[in-house]
Amino acid sequence: MSNLDQLKTELAGLQLEDNPQIVKQKSRDFFWYSPVLKQQLDHVTGDLVVTPKSEEEIIQVLKACYALDIPVTTRGAGTGNYGQAMPLSGGVILNLAELNKVKSIRPGVVVVEAGAIISKIDEECRAHSGQELRLHPSTYRTATIGGFIAGGSGGVGSINWGGLRDLGNVIRLRVLTMEAEPRVLELTGEDLHKVMHAYGTNGIITEVEMPLTAAYDWVDVLVGFDEFMDGVQFADRLGNQDGLLVKEIAPIAAPVPHDYFLRHKKFIRKDQSVVVCMVASFAMDAFAAFVRRNSKASILYRSDLADEADVKSLPPAYELAWNHTTLRGLRVEPGITYLQVLYPFPDQIEKVRTMVELLGDEVPAHLEYVRFDGKITCFGLPIVRYTTEERLNEIIKLHEDNGCPVFNPHRYTLEEGGMKQTDEVQLAFKKEADPKGLLNPGKMIAWEDPSYDYKSDKLFLFPGLQPA
Amino acid sequence: MSNLDQLKTELAGLQLEDNPQIVKQKSRDFFWYSPVLKQQLDHVTGDLVVTPKSEEEIIQVLKACYALDIPVTTRGAGTGNYGQAMPLSGGVILNLAELNKVKSIRPGVVVVEAGAIISKIDEECRAHSGQELRLHPSTYRTATIGGFIAGGSGGVGSINWGGLRDLGNVIRLRVLTMEAEPRVLELTGEDLHKVMHAYGTNGIITEVEMPLTAAYDWVDVLVGFDEFMDGVQFADRLGNQDGLLVKEIAPIAAPVPHDYFLRHKKFIRKDQSVVVCMVASFAMDAFAAFVRRNSKASILYRSDLADEADVKSLPPAYELAWNHTTLRGLRVEPGITYLQVLYPFPDQIEKVRTMVELLGDEVPAHLEYVRFDGKITCFGLPIVRYTTEERLNEIIKLHEDNGCPVFNPHRYTLEEGGMKQTDEVQLAFKKEADPKGLLNPGKMIAWEDPSYDYKSDKLFLFPGLQPA
Repeated sequence: MSNLDQLKTELAGLQLEDNPQIVKQKSRDFFWYSPVLKQQLDHVTGDLVVTPKSEEEIIQVLKACYALDIPVTTRGAGTGNYGQAMPLSGGVILNLAELNKVKSIRPGVVVVEAGAIISKIDEECRAHSGQELRLHPSTYRTATIGGFIAGGSGGVGSINWGGLRDLGNVIRLRVLTMEAEPRVLELTGEDLHKVMHAYGTNGIITEVEMPLTAAYDWVDVLVGFDEFMDGVQFADRLGNQDGLLVKEIAPIAAPVPHDYFLRHKKFIRKDQSVVVCMVASFAMDAFAAFVRRNSKASILYRSDLADEADVKSLPPAYELAWNHTTLRGLRVEPGITYLQVLYPFPDQIEKVRTMVELLGDEVPAHLEYVRFDGKITCFGLPIVRYTTEERLNEIIKLHEDNGCPVFNPHRYTLEEGGMKQTDEVQLAFKKEADPKGLLNPGKMIAWEDPSYDYKSDKLFLFPGLQPA
Repeated sequence: MSNLDQLKTELAGLQLEDNPQIVKQKSRDFFWYSPVLKQQLDHVTGDLVVTPKSEEEIIQVLKACYALDIPVTTRGAGTGNYGQAMPLSGGVILNLAELNKVKSIRPGVVVVEAGAIISKIDEECRAHSGQELRLHPSTYRTATIGGFIAGGSGGVGSINWGGLRDLGNVIRLRVLTMEAEPRVLELTGEDLHKVMHAYGTNGIITEVEMPLTAAYDWVDVLVGFDEFMDGVQFADRLGNQDGLLVKEIAPIAAPVPHDYFLRHKKFIRKDQSVVVCMVASFAMDAFAAFVRRNSKASILYRSDLADEADVKSLPPAYELAWNHTTLRGLRVEPGITYLQVLYPFPDQIEKVRTMVELLGDEVPAHLEYVRFDGKITCFGLPIVRYTTEERLNEIIKLHEDNGCPVFNPHRYTLEEGGMKQTDEVQLAFKKEADPKGLLNPGKMIAWEDPSYDYKSDKLFLFPGLQPA
């Protein structure tokens, strides 16, 4: 009897799925945004999907897999873009979709199971006491909170609260270790960084305690500009308006808004750049006054004054932003891809201008304004009209040579997609919490190849990656 | 029959007070923080206090005073420090204390009459839906919302929301003009600046619509440092923590905390500088982690872990900060006074250091961290061990020569206490709304002496100031 068969026997009481087509479907995320990852990972699949209904069932899975040396890759909704939740060496897909209960809500705080869908959490918090989460990805309506914490970094709301990495944006994580006898740990404060944004390589997050903020009616607004850089100036000033409550500011260069936002197309000229905003309803007078200060800005659409039919048929503004911009682009032009860039304060505007001038129509700009270390600056998720991997790497190098770090979404490891160095805290915790290295193998270079040279420009190839 | 007697006859149905002692008391604010204003204004008094109970009654007062050429000085609670509400030419004190109803509360918005006490508004908003105002002065428990808007600039909460001047921090003002037939105006957006921070010189604010934010249990924390500048570094970094929700950050140099904070003295060494903080209760784990990152910081007091008896007997943290620091100082050392300084971003820390080194124990530092044009920086309300007016002016000049603008709290005019230039918007609105110049005379130089030269270093002396 193979290890896998033995595992199935041991977990007979749990919800298991081994239909290869379904298992493969549950082994994928949005890695195919990247033509590079698409080629590398398209064949990747796990062997078995287990969908536990409780923490006890997860412990049962972990114990069994530990004993049988079977890898475990934890999965939320599979909305990542870096192959975060793809089982490079096969094994078990631990699907937390059924661990989705909101356990308690009080002023400023929600406690929730890791597999809960982010928009569902907000629905409950709004109904309970007019509250909502501080941050969410553009995959608000599909992503899980645990997946966001394990594989995301920020998103809508980051203009007010920075990113998940910032102290205070996660209050507590309940984490299971991958040992003969899994331990239950409650992490707070500095300890949170042991498992946050670790792709589930060093523990299983089962429950999270998150800060809440006030929920308001957010008005979706599109502001149009003839020149993209005027839109950037506008966005930068708007982000620095201390009293004007917004939740999202995304300048997007023409012709992306017209060409990719199919249902908003009628509001946008092809040569118009757009700043996508979400504004608190009670701030709309102030917002309109702010727009009137800028002779180059014109409001193309605001949901609070729109026809009811439009409001119903249009996607929400957050589904035009962050990686939904790319997603909409891929539907229209399947050949595109994207990058993730930081334009560091205080030179963000000049750096954006430099990259726009250098790369023009090959890399149409898409910025996301955020608070970063206390300052308003922007990330970029520019569209890349992809030709070759070589040219893609040149474009990345051009950004880095111009002082704009790239969080490379064409790599599947934590380090290459992130800070390009070993995270000693996460590595040390993995040694404790996953001594056999069974959790999501191949994602942490520091574990797989401690001698890897991040300055080598060499692609890390995980030796355990299942052959195509 | 004098004009005043005729006024009393015409307003016979209203609540009037002409007992000279009470009238004088209602003619004063906290101008005596300044030895200069104390000398200039100590004798100032109105002739009659009128306390209307409705907007209709205010209109009755304005019509009568307009017809009789009697000045009207509007008063909230008299908690200003610049003589904002002192009737330099006598006349009517329009006391709005009875116009204090909370009219409606919805998510993000409260509508309230101008005379409502700020803490009372918050009590109602908290009970209604867990909300509170964004900003309040340290005189939270006594000041009115209308007085704050007409004569204040920011305070507790400005670390998150900037100042009242920022678009979005006031939604709507209902304003009466001083004409034969007073008009009722509803101002929003850009128009708000016509009457905000105009000391009631160009209209009577009767109703305000303010944005609300989420109310939390705020934990009062005192963090101690051996060196003041280490406290400043800590405060600066704390203000730049995007995910750590605080409402107040005030570094105060030794020996002020020990010597002036009598009920907190037991927690503080004489040579210890302190950073006074208010932190959301659910952020205390993150806050403690943040403090542990700084080897020079130690938590001296936190209200969430304090004895119940302490919590009951100690004043709240906001009553150690802003101008309550000065007030506590005046009780211990009546000879002191203070300044209001801006240390502009990005050199705020170096500018603070320069001023501390230049002025030492003569001007013990007290900073208030705020968001200002999108950046975290600090205002100062340093204690000044006052000797002469000449030396005070030297100290002011030293600040300005070192790039730290002073909002001079030793002047009673809008311009000298503010931007040192004519506010054309306010002046134009005064011409419309107060054609006879009867509202709070002597406070707007641009009205009284259009040829006044702000660069002359000459003190503006209002010719209409009643003789001592």
